[in-house]
Amino acid sequence: MAKEKKLVEAITSMEEDFAQWYTDVVKKAELIGYSSVKGCMIIKPAGYALWENIQNELDRRFKETGVENVYMPMFIPESLLNKEKDHVEGFAPEVAWVTHGGLNPLQERLCVRPTSETLFCDFYKTDVQSYRDLPKVYNQWCSVVRWEKETRPFLRSREFLWQEGHTAHATAEEAEERTVQMLNVYADFCEEELAIPVVRGRKTEKEKFAGANATYTIEALMHDGKALQSGTSHNFGDGFAKAFEIQYTDKENKLQYVHQTSWGVSTRIIGAIIMVHGDNSGLVLPPRIAPTQVMVIPIQQHKEGILEKAAELKERLRAAGIRVKTDDSQKSPGWKFAEQEMRGVPVRIEMGPKDMEAGQCVLVRRDTREKLVVSLEELEAKTKELLAAIQNDMFERAKAHRDAHIYDAHSYEEFADIITNKPGFIRGMWCGSQACEDKLKEDFAATSRCMPFHDQEEISPVCVCCGKPAHKLVYWGKAY
Amino acid sequence: MAKEKKLVEAITSMEEDFAQWYTDVVKKAELIGYSSVKGCMIIKPAGYALWENIQNELDRRFKETGVENVYMPMFIPESLLNKEKDHVEGFAPEVAWVTHGGLNPLQERLCVRPTSETLFCDFYKTDVQSYRDLPKVYNQWCSVVRWEKETRPFLRSREFLWQEGHTAHATAEEAEERTVQMLNVYADFCEEELAIPVVRGRKTEKEKFAGANATYTIEALMHDGKALQSGTSHNFGDGFAKAFEIQYTDKENKLQYVHQTSWGVSTRIIGAIIMVHGDNSGLVLPPRIAPTQVMVIPIQQHKEGILEKAAELKERLRAAGIRVKTDDSQKSPGWKFAEQEMRGVPVRIEMGPKDMEAGQCVLVRRDTREKLVVSLEELEAKTKELLAAIQNDMFERAKAHRDAHIYDAHSYEEFADIITNKPGFIRGMWCGSQACEDKLKEDFAATSRCMPFHDQEEISPVCVCCGKPAHKLVYWGKAY
Repeated sequence: MAKEKKLVEAITSMEEDFAQWYTDVVKKAELIGYSSVKGCMIIKPAGYALWENIQNELDRRFKETGVENVYMPMFIPESLLNKEKDHVEGFAPEVAWVTHGGLNPLQERLCVRPTSETLFCDFYKTDVQSYRDLPKVYNQWCSVVRWEKETRPFLRSREFLWQEGHTAHATAEEAEERTVQMLNVYADFCEEELAIPVVRGRKTEKEKFAGANATYTIEALMHDGKALQSGTSHNFGDGFAKAFEIQYTDKENKLQYVHQTSWGVSTRIIGAIIMVHGDNSGLVLPPRIAPTQVMVIPIQQHKEGILEKAAELKERLRAAGIRVKTDDSQKSPGWKFAEQEMRGVPVRIEMGPKDMEAGQCVLVRRDTREKLVVSLEELEAKTKELLAAIQNDMFERAKAHRDAHIYDAHSYEEFADIITNKPGFIRGMWCGSQACEDKLKEDFAATSRCMPFHDQEEISPVCVCCGKPAHKLVYWGKAY
Repeated sequence: MAKEKKLVEAITSMEEDFAQWYTDVVKKAELIGYSSVKGCMIIKPAGYALWENIQNELDRRFKETGVENVYMPMFIPESLLNKEKDHVEGFAPEVAWVTHGGLNPLQERLCVRPTSETLFCDFYKTDVQSYRDLPKVYNQWCSVVRWEKETRPFLRSREFLWQEGHTAHATAEEAEERTVQMLNVYADFCEEELAIPVVRGRKTEKEKFAGANATYTIEALMHDGKALQSGTSHNFGDGFAKAFEIQYTDKENKLQYVHQTSWGVSTRIIGAIIMVHGDNSGLVLPPRIAPTQVMVIPIQQHKEGILEKAAELKERLRAAGIRVKTDDSQKSPGWKFAEQEMRGVPVRIEMGPKDMEAGQCVLVRRDTREKLVVSLEELEAKTKELLAAIQNDMFERAKAHRDAHIYDAHSYEEFADIITNKPGFIRGMWCGSQACEDKLKEDFAATSRCMPFHDQEEISPVCVCCGKPAHKLVYWGKAY
């Protein structure tokens, strides 16, 4: 079978070429396909099922905080995009422009949304009149377009899927509270569901979102020591409100500007799952987000009763609320194991004649490959226990890896040594000048990832770049 | 309060001006907002929550039949759109064209997908190689763009949300089976969830989808006697496969073309819910699809214990699996009733001091306004019973209305009389010539809705238009 052969062909090892390993995994785990549309990806069933689980769980967490879903048009008239100066400067160079509708040229060209702040502002301008109309806590699930030159599946593509929340509040305090609240929703989601530890912090002026007063971020460390920005939350203050004239009458009947936020997580997060947990056999999915949690694989399935027994196990696990499949295809058990490993299914259950006779089955963990012989009487309980243990261990392993790759730099020389020789986060003091950020980027392709919330201490009195007095601790790193 | 006043202002009555009634309802029930993007709508929380329920239930039914979700790019290169002749002729005049990416003109312009047959074909061409790769039963939830000149919320807009299923099969029989299967999924969904009776049938050559061999449709009758095409399923045979060279090797190692289908339901269906069930007080939502099924409204809520009691009822109903809210705002009960009616919440529960004393509450049906005094002990059981009864009665009422508006025409004169004086479906024989369809459209703006599956009888030996021999029964009507 040409196809099967391709599948079990060794993927490039991550130690040899991490970028190629990543490309091999997204293809061979059948997460994406390439399309005729340059820079755009096809998300195949295995990839989309992962995104559906991410959506469902994030959406549930959003709604618990009072978020309501809406849908805005995908087009933005050029004049609307131009209303907020910083915003348009940030996005205009990378948008796709629609110039014709049917056979006729448009009077005003429209861009395909790269993000929808301007549309929500235009909407709030008419929809918000009184303090009674506030807050507005809206979100939409949609696709957006940014005309990137270099693209990579999930990490950077011309079109990607995401959610974008856009809120309007009566006060600056409430907007700030919502900005932080949503960043924490993202961080908790990453840690609890995706088993990805994150650093929560604030972006510098240079790195913040176009048009925002402040951008908060969660930063995760990939297996190769590079950072991935995994979710951001922005506080706009009343800047957009002033540009778009979004005013409400307060309780004293005075006109006030609203205060706004926006926050987003995209299909990029799938790249993080791959690069934090994957190994040289393919994907390793955290059980809580895995579309299939358990794959039952019959051994010597031609023997009497084996297929029936495998189906019975599957049915029992399904009834216990576990997402389970059986692979009863004609492939050999070896092929099936390789496929299940490539796709990152957290637990494999092997059921052969000897197991059947002994009233047992074998559970194999995807993450450690450890085998567990389990009496069929305890099937449901032991499987659930194992899934929970895998989820927990995956987080702890990722956290230990992350923590082992955080280094302190006290001087430019030390920074240079670490960034060159030790992939990971670098903690270093910063004086607050953009010139220093520019220099570190120029010299080492290192960027300021964030000023962490929970980790602020003065590890040195001077800036890691210029040596002048500094009071801000920054996480630096190379990033995707 | 200016806003509240606007809400309870009488909406235009449907007898006076049905089109204006519709526009009033979509606005005042806060389903949509108008945007700066001409012809595109903003779907507000009440409208989007309805769409989410439709999505969840349809998606569940799809997956039961083996459908897998994917996501294709939103852009189609012009050369790809041009590959199937009939298809491009059908869609090219109404697509939006992207000509610039960032600051640069594109080498080849891209259209924003009006539908994605061409993208799926391009994908299957490389993804399908052997009979083992078949069938492919894929679906995507996305937005599409068609540059319409005249637009109306939900019914016709330049951008709308939908799902589009695209399948590839080894045999013609299997493709035909899937085409009919999905039409039946749509029909059952409409009848069971939306309480909308539909006629299932086949489109004529003139009315079929651009590029299809056969198009099947479900047609619903709106309250004003006009038809609304509510879902379609297309069998493409191997036409697209030949245009795109989608071939697989069969078990005998011979190259064969695949057979394909596609099928879609869009946000248009929300228009059907409004126009089938709504009344002069606003929306009337079928309980199974209503985002809020029960609204608890406290009466004299300043009196001791009332708000607590209302909250208790809400909590009990929530625990029983009912989607319930309490309106404890400062508005008067009358305002609250009007809002609940406008938004179509199926059941209102009134709870006042006398009710509390008597250990009871009052359930009011949105559809008939009938009141039911219920002992608090029976709250959950009686509420569930009532929701089921409303769902059932709404379907029966819609069906009785539909059936009372189906007329038989045996001649051109009879057709002319009915189409002019009696809004509804007209059953009339058809000779099979497109000239007759064109004439009836020209003379009366009547179109052939479908050749029904379940209702084929020869009610006359001759065509209702030309008088020549005819053997096909067609449902005719004016349509949205």
